[in-house]
Amino acid sequence: MKAFKKIVICGVGLIGGSFALALRRGGLAEQIVGMGRSRETLERAIALGIIDEAPESWPQALEGASLVLLACPVAQTGKVLEQIAPHLPPTTIVTDAGSTKGDVVEAIYRHLPHHLTHAIPAHPIAGTEHSGPDAAHAHLFDGRRVVLTPLPENSTATARLVSELWRACGASVVEMHPQDHDRIFAAVSHLPHLLAYGLVHDLAKRANAEQLFAFAAGGFRDFTRIAGSHPEMWRDICIANRQPLLAELDQYLSELAYLRSLLLAGKSDLLHKHFSTARDARNNWIAQIEQAQNAAPEEGEG
Amino acid sequence: MKAFKKIVICGVGLIGGSFALALRRGGLAEQIVGMGRSRETLERAIALGIIDEAPESWPQALEGASLVLLACPVAQTGKVLEQIAPHLPPTTIVTDAGSTKGDVVEAIYRHLPHHLTHAIPAHPIAGTEHSGPDAAHAHLFDGRRVVLTPLPENSTATARLVSELWRACGASVVEMHPQDHDRIFAAVSHLPHLLAYGLVHDLAKRANAEQLFAFAAGGFRDFTRIAGSHPEMWRDICIANRQPLLAELDQYLSELAYLRSLLLAGKSDLLHKHFSTARDARNNWIAQIEQAQNAAPEEGEG
Repeated sequence: MKAFKKIVICGVGLIGGSFALALRRGGLAEQIVGMGRSRETLERAIALGIIDEAPESWPQALEGASLVLLACPVAQTGKVLEQIAPHLPPTTIVTDAGSTKGDVVEAIYRHLPHHLTHAIPAHPIAGTEHSGPDAAHAHLFDGRRVVLTPLPENSTATARLVSELWRACGASVVEMHPQDHDRIFAAVSHLPHLLAYGLVHDLAKRANAEQLFAFAAGGFRDFTRIAGSHPEMWRDICIANRQPLLAELDQYLSELAYLRSLLLAGKSDLLHKHFSTARDARNNWIAQIEQAQNAAPEEGEG
Repeated sequence: MKAFKKIVICGVGLIGGSFALALRRGGLAEQIVGMGRSRETLERAIALGIIDEAPESWPQALEGASLVLLACPVAQTGKVLEQIAPHLPPTTIVTDAGSTKGDVVEAIYRHLPHHLTHAIPAHPIAGTEHSGPDAAHAHLFDGRRVVLTPLPENSTATARLVSELWRACGASVVEMHPQDHDRIFAAVSHLPHLLAYGLVHDLAKRANAEQLFAFAAGGFRDFTRIAGSHPEMWRDICIANRQPLLAELDQYLSELAYLRSLLLAGKSDLLHKHFSTARDARNNWIAQIEQAQNAAPEEGEG
């Protein structure tokens, strides 16, 4: 695809920084500039060659911008859109990388009502428990999926361009309704993060925390890996998506109440059945991932 | 250390099989024989060179045995001890590899009351979500910890020999009271397994399970890795250790109730504080593991 003239990335951490590096790898942008709350992070991103410069103000950043990507914690979305709205050139595409989509859709309707053809919410399904520009790398999106939740007002050209850009960054692209997106990710991503933070917190506050951690092994390590994730980012996600997340949490609490009843009554057979069902479902899922990877090496677990 | 003349392993799956392979690696046994419920598994273990033979009966297996290791699912412990009791030579050491210890202590007092000097419960902190003899390997215990929970009646020589044997298999050894063991592992191992099985089961039973799994990514994959574990083994562990496990589950349910209240009320700051505490605790733990590994490469995470 033809290189974009100027791309603005707001938030140059793991996701924003990796997006910039993927753009560079593909020769997809003539100029990449960064914006964000922390001057220190922006300077670091310049030093790492992630962005070319970090303008002092939004009018400077947006002048001649082809595309703006918001890759800041999702609670910032509304504020940033409000700040950019007065200075946004009419043909600049606005998109984001937030893990929640209902709140982004709302913020676009509120703050960019005259820019709806060019504002398209997106969610690249990538990330690790590490954060910041030092964690960024050009291959983060290779084989990953990006979910677009287009607005009815989006122009076809905008949706096509953003799709092409993500594909050129190594990802595959799917479209979805924002509510479906938020329910699905509450279940498979937001809830597990909440559960992992909860378990580590539960142990860390005990008098014998040190002893407990001393005997925690590989299972605990993998189970809690996501509790090493960026607290502000995940606070924002949980708050922004709290209705679907509460529904998922309540569903999970019922599951635990059932397991509790099996333990209490010593229902060995039902416990075995439960664990077997779970084991089989997970093994099937892993087998499907591996099959997909073998069939098409560029397609990852999404 | 001097090689044992004959070692009997009951249950030649991941743990028992790896113990055998570690014995072979270290030249620690002249003969290794296997026992178990499944003839097929025993034949497979012979084919893989894990055991030398699989005797037809306990009297044959125990004849001239220096040591018996029980590495079967923990619900089998009592039955196996009952079977071996009448045929056990007086100097044969009996030990196990079960993930719970209170139940093993009880079973020893019940079934081997005349063999208490030589029966010592143990728990190697090793294992993966894989199971069976094909998953066994000689290095499984390298850098891992083995917890011994000696009985007051154990002879010093027995405790010393079993410690030395595990060290020769690559592990480090710590001693602990069985109740402490069971409380600690309920928290850092048994509860996470229950939670992971529960989450996968919760999603697998939904009408849109396929769609949910299709969007599950690396975080979900690691979080649920342990839900791929052997259902019978974990059923037995959860049942055997159900009092401490219920206490841990209830503690965790309080934690989730607290998190639920923060979400419901949109208490952004407290949620951020909670996640930060958890993240810091986990990062400190990982840093300590890495420091220990750098300081002494043979010491693992235990």
